[in-house]
Amino acid sequence: MRENLPVRTRPPAAGVAGAQLRGLLAEPEPSYLMGAHDGLSARIAAEAGFPAIWASGLCMSTILGCRDNDEVSWSELLDLTARMVEAGGVPVLVDADTGYGNFNTARRFAARAQRIGAAGICVEDKVFPKMNSFFGEQHPLAPIGEFCAKIAACRDCVDDEFVIVARVEALIAGAGMAEALRRAEAYREAGADAIFIHSRQRTVEEIAEFTREWGARLPLVIAPTTYYTVPAQTFAELGIAAVIWANHAMRASVAAMREACRALRRDGAAAVEPVITPLDELFSLMGYPELEADQAHYSSLAQKWVDS
Amino acid sequence: MRENLPVRTRPPAAGVAGAQLRGLLAEPEPSYLMGAHDGLSARIAAEAGFPAIWASGLCMSTILGCRDNDEVSWSELLDLTARMVEAGGVPVLVDADTGYGNFNTARRFAARAQRIGAAGICVEDKVFPKMNSFFGEQHPLAPIGEFCAKIAACRDCVDDEFVIVARVEALIAGAGMAEALRRAEAYREAGADAIFIHSRQRTVEEIAEFTREWGARLPLVIAPTTYYTVPAQTFAELGIAAVIWANHAMRASVAAMREACRALRRDGAAAVEPVITPLDELFSLMGYPELEADQAHYSSLAQKWVDS
Amino acid sequence: MRENLPVRTRPPAAGVAGAQLRGLLAEPEPSYLMGAHDGLSARIAAEAGFPAIWASGLCMSTILGCRDNDEVSWSELLDLTARMVEAGGVPVLVDADTGYGNFNTARRFAARAQRIGAAGICVEDKVFPKMNSFFGEQHPLAPIGEFCAKIAACRDCVDDEFVIVARVEALIAGAGMAEALRRAEAYREAGADAIFIHSRQRTVEEIAEFTREWGARLPLVIAPTTYYTVPAQTFAELGIAAVIWANHAMRASVAAMREACRALRRDGAAAVEPVITPLDELFSLMGYPELEADQAHYSSLAQKWVDS
Amino acid sequence: MRENLPVRTRPPAAGVAGAQLRGLLAEPEPSYLMGAHDGLSARIAAEAGFPAIWASGLCMSTILGCRDNDEVSWSELLDLTARMVEAGGVPVLVDADTGYGNFNTARRFAARAQRIGAAGICVEDKVFPKMNSFFGEQHPLAPIGEFCAKIAACRDCVDDEFVIVARVEALIAGAGMAEALRRAEAYREAGADAIFIHSRQRTVEEIAEFTREWGARLPLVIAPTTYYTVPAQTFAELGIAAVIWANHAMRASVAAMREACRALRRDGAAAVEPVITPLDELFSLMGYPELEADQAHYSSLAQKWVDS
Repeated sequence: MRENLPVRTRPPAAGVAGAQLRGLLAEPEPSYLMGAHDGLSARIAAEAGFPAIWASGLCMSTILGCRDNDEVSWSELLDLTARMVEAGGVPVLVDADTGYGNFNTARRFAARAQRIGAAGICVEDKVFPKMNSFFGEQHPLAPIGEFCAKIAACRDCVDDEFVIVARVEALIAGAGMAEALRRAEAYREAGADAIFIHSRQRTVEEIAEFTREWGARLPLVIAPTTYYTVPAQTFAELGIAAVIWANHAMRASVAAMREACRALRRDGAAAVEPVITPLDELFSLMGYPELEADQAHYSSLAQKWVDS
Repeated sequence: MRENLPVRTRPPAAGVAGAQLRGLLAEPEPSYLMGAHDGLSARIAAEAGFPAIWASGLCMSTILGCRDNDEVSWSELLDLTARMVEAGGVPVLVDADTGYGNFNTARRFAARAQRIGAAGICVEDKVFPKMNSFFGEQHPLAPIGEFCAKIAACRDCVDDEFVIVARVEALIAGAGMAEALRRAEAYREAGADAIFIHSRQRTVEEIAEFTREWGARLPLVIAPTTYYTVPAQTFAELGIAAVIWANHAMRASVAAMREACRALRRDGAAAVEPVITPLDELFSLMGYPELEADQAHYSSLAQKWVDS
Repeated sequence: MRENLPVRTRPPAAGVAGAQLRGLLAEPEPSYLMGAHDGLSARIAAEAGFPAIWASGLCMSTILGCRDNDEVSWSELLDLTARMVEAGGVPVLVDADTGYGNFNTARRFAARAQRIGAAGICVEDKVFPKMNSFFGEQHPLAPIGEFCAKIAACRDCVDDEFVIVARVEALIAGAGMAEALRRAEAYREAGADAIFIHSRQRTVEEIAEFTREWGARLPLVIAPTTYYTVPAQTFAELGIAAVIWANHAMRASVAAMREACRALRRDGAAAVEPVITPLDELFSLMGYPELEADQAHYSSLAQKWVDS
Repeated sequence: MRENLPVRTRPPAAGVAGAQLRGLLAEPEPSYLMGAHDGLSARIAAEAGFPAIWASGLCMSTILGCRDNDEVSWSELLDLTARMVEAGGVPVLVDADTGYGNFNTARRFAARAQRIGAAGICVEDKVFPKMNSFFGEQHPLAPIGEFCAKIAACRDCVDDEFVIVARVEALIAGAGMAEALRRAEAYREAGADAIFIHSRQRTVEEIAEFTREWGARLPLVIAPTTYYTVPAQTFAELGIAAVIWANHAMRASVAAMREACRALRRDGAAAVEPVITPLDELFSLMGYPELEADQAHYSSLAQKWVDS
């Protein structure tokens, strides 16, 4: 195997992704995971230095033109995730929604996620089909025992390094702090490697309260989509293991594409040129020069046999 | 069939897409096609008022983490194109690159493109695997007869409304104006519905010259990626049928996502919030309120049978 | 468009598939639908003269290595169905299982089934994830109102010719004849075009009873998998509209492949040769001679431009 | 991870597949690889005791309704291959045809084949798009240097255990024994792990001659599709490393499905029942009882949390 291959053509470091993600969750400081939704956004996240990627169900649904209501099939999501694994070169934690049915569909998702090179999955305790946690008020929770069995079934069919994150939606569903803690503890007992405690408050209060009560039983994961004003220092002080910027890249792209389309309609391409990535920068980002070098390398190799 | 369904859940207007695109090419003023690469960008293009979409090979390759060198399979491209057809609700012209092999692979691409609801394909006269026209100097042209046969084979296996655009790369390959005109004429005789004359000069000169020589034999399509400073008025005066903004949305998204990732790393989410689309706007764009209304509608329908 | 193209390269007769299937259901004699699971089995069914194809969930799951318990995603099933539509050239009725969630996932399945050229879908009134009706005793029924809303939602997002078949599982679930009739009537009111009344008895008794009670309110569809000894004449006398041989081709292939594998292990290839299709017959079935002819046709076409 | 999981839900033994296939090629006696084309046929092959599977391009193309002329995209082939890996539980050697273009498309195929868990690829020295070696007389060979570069590029982007087989078509192309040997030697130097020497004679003569000249430079692979009467003892004496039954399962299934369809049309289902696999046997083959046991296991697990 050659040494200097671009990320995409390098083979997967088999089994390593899970261990890498475990390592990140075990670090004393919070790790930041960047939400991505395709090969391009994964590459951009990796380029910016993020050590891992969140394959967001909302974002993947959106780029496929769909709503985050399980309109996209689980295999379509994993096809996109595979592109992120290939293009990003960093561990990918995949949003598994509610597991798409029962213990059996959930473990199929987990097993295939591992097969395509993902580092772990995150499964949430709502009812299938689930609605995005930031939309509407209908977020019924799954029965606790059924969800624990789902976690156990996933745990049972992946290797030991693969990460299973259990996402607690009790706060968003309005079920209260006690229920959130009770569920998190049950999910821990069922085999979860980390707890994603989700909140859609504008402040960090309920997350902070949960964190204090929870202690260090398992690493905690958060997605401060609504409480984005909270400084990083706070997350560190709370002992959060991982912070997910779940959908910021996608939402940045929506704003930029809408503005570009409007400006193109109104003013033409000259008005847009200053705010779009030049082609040569795009080619660098995507590794075109390396391809050109490889072309030369293998052409000269081919010549060797022609000459011999 | 209900009347007020969102685009995505409306059935395809079978056979109509091709006729719509033909209509656009026949209009006296240039039609502007917006380059898109997934369901989201297709929806944004349609929202901005573009009457049709260019399913760009460069852009689709890029979002899948790949280079525009036929690294992505033709079926992967058509899977993405299907999402654009579903999400956009406007005719989609698909970049077929060189047809992925010979007359038989090209016509398979054409037939499947029609099956998934595309309005037409554009096939270019380079050699498979082809390199993006804006990168490097290696752009060998296909033998003219072989390419004509490809066009004829595509024409033979789609319905009469489906549009076959032949893309002439002679100017980019450095083969000269006479060769460009000779090829365009041969492709017309072979059954092309329009000629995409491609240039990577910074000015409109060679396009203008081609246009004057060509006259009105067939509608002309251009992609002013490098000669973006040319005003729309010029294209109208030249009698161009369609202008493609081939990759501006994707490049706007790259710039925005890179900046968002950098700012998140450096300054945190509060710094990014002002430049990303708010979640409620995203939900509106993607039709979440309509889904909520449908949920209510079908729930009350369900109740009818429970009560009866 | 050329006239003599092989099925696969002919364009889809848009919207026509649904009308053809409707026509079959309206004929006075029963139509026989052959269960298929991929392009090959679809072609074989069409070759044998079957006027339509049943894209069986059990069979498609099986060839993908999975159990008929919604282990395969709905998009994977439709990808296979698209191959049947392309290869068979006859209308395809797709097994939609329970609709994969709620009204919204069901209508997405329906809309995409139409987009890929299917003639109709069949949705059954069990709970997701469902177990194959011939295995085990756990077959809980969906609430009747919820299922009616699903049918209505599907009906609302496809065109008028596309066929929606509602499958009644009440007899298999042990809910009794009255419940089967009550549900069939509700599904008719909700917009179903035909009723698939399913039974796993060894005799035709309960089907006959249902048929007499039902009368001619809507066309009836059956799958005599367990009551296979019943003669065709009986189905005709009962006024059945369509009889599905749901999984016989797949089961014939399993028996043949197991025996071939065993014989190859034990006796070598010479023992197997007499019972396998010769390569030249396979090539004829799949249209290789037509491809050779097309190759010659387009090569001579290409030569025309070289010579000119 | 639980111990007694069915094949499909067990995690991939990462990196192990390649090593297993290498081990088979290194054994003193010939290993027999069974040609398969989907999850079902892979499972049947494994059940019959075959130690490895050949993911045949002809067979996969056929079941997708296509001709073995690169009508199916490489990603569609790998999607099917992934189902074989999941369902078979034995190493899978994938038919990579000619590598689908150039060194870059070939290594992309190789890298993705490894990612989905295949044990190796086999790439042949014909020109893309290639025609099946058993059909027609048009089988032009790739330039030797170009093909060597392809092998090297594949070798460079997979891990050391992954197997690269180079398939020599010189005998079928009529280029003679000397050319076949010259090419095999070049491919060995370029990095191939084994040589697949292909013949379509009715006797073993030319294979035997090649084998004697070649010696033990690299393991040899053959597919005695046309010389099927040759006894296994001969292959052992020649020192062949692997014998592929390339398409016998598929051809057995074609014969059986055609006969079943004809009999169903002519005589009804009772005539077919004796020659098709009973449903309960099918359910056993596919692991339904294990699913039922898992259902009980996880239900009781779920109950534990309900009770606590």
